[in-house]
Amino acid sequence: MEHVTRTDPFSFSVDPSTGIVTPHDNLIQRRLSHMNGMFMDQAAREAMLEVEDTLLYEVYEVEVPDEAGHLMVCTSITYPGKVGREYFMTKGHFHEKIQTAEIYSCLRGQGIMMMESDRGDWKAEPMTQGRAVYVPPYYAHRSINTGQEPLISLCVYPGGAGHDYATIETKGFRKLVLEKNGKPEIEDNPKWKSRI
Amino acid sequence: MEHVTRTDPFSFSVDPSTGIVTPHDNLIQRRLSHMNGMFMDQAAREAMLEVEDTLLYEVYEVEVPDEAGHLMVCTSITYPGKVGREYFMTKGHFHEKIQTAEIYSCLRGQGIMMMESDRGDWKAEPMTQGRAVYVPPYYAHRSINTGQEPLISLCVYPGGAGHDYATIETKGFRKLVLEKNGKPEIEDNPKWKSRI
Repeated sequence: MEHVTRTDPFSFSVDPSTGIVTPHDNLIQRRLSHMNGMFMDQAAREAMLEVEDTLLYEVYEVEVPDEAGHLMVCTSITYPGKVGREYFMTKGHFHEKIQTAEIYSCLRGQGIMMMESDRGDWKAEPMTQGRAVYVPPYYAHRSINTGQEPLISLCVYPGGAGHDYATIETKGFRKLVLEKNGKPEIEDNPKWKSRI
Repeated sequence: MEHVTRTDPFSFSVDPSTGIVTPHDNLIQRRLSHMNGMFMDQAAREAMLEVEDTLLYEVYEVEVPDEAGHLMVCTSITYPGKVGREYFMTKGHFHEKIQTAEIYSCLRGQGIMMMESDRGDWKAEPMTQGRAVYVPPYYAHRSINTGQEPLISLCVYPGGAGHDYATIETKGFRKLVLEKNGKPEIEDNPKWKSRI
């Protein structure tokens, strides 16, 4: 292992009803305008954008050295709603160092963690309060809010893992989660491109 | 980064009132008899042992490959009680790869995370529901239950970090947490040995 920077111990609070981390160092906000081409129903997205650039999700980050040995920690808050039949979701990403895992410990809400490996294997795991999801190395991951309230998780991943958003932006996830008869259903993504 | 083993995604539940992980792979139980020489008041420990080999803490582990890139996840449950004036606590350990961090997300109870670096720097952080502690690289760490109910945390640390219990067993923590006038107080450990 390379040199690892020394830091002081600290603690922080996580509000399970809002996902707000106190103190936090960064707040990332993703709106409908940031998710170009990621929702299946592009006409529905355009129509929504004419009314409001809706906030889809937020990430509160605690800053530590971005190095292996340290652990990155954040909360992820995905708001309830749909674009057409498709539930609000995060962009989803691989780690830049693809062989690194992530743990999502769900604090509130109802949803699905959609995961897909570089080989095209996929799995959907339920997210609900008191449930934690192990996103293994090599798996892209996206939080999808299928419920009526914010979907909130505490996330931990290795320092230095980095984020690769581009692969998902250009190739998509193999599976989408869409509402059908009032319930979430997993369907094939007609635009998905294999990475192999 | 070396080769990282592929595993399937999975999820598990964590009961915040008991700390039980479902499903789990290992359950570690530490009793008074396992903590020889770790509590200050050895006579009080001997007297307690004659009555019962009390359960001090438990660790529920989820098994993933013990390799950098993966993340180890477990719950830690320290029960309430005292040996003489000293609160029930975990053995405490450095990581074998000392330059690896750990995150404790507290789910229930009241306590203190006592941390001490290889250089003898120390810090105590409060543990309570909704609070998380960042144990940085190079820091030994011990959970101490200063409350009336179980002290329960969800813990995440890098795969391959390993455990070094021997250093604490032989040299101790610099600071002890003892009850004084019904409240926890941090005091010097007269038996502490410097590591430098």
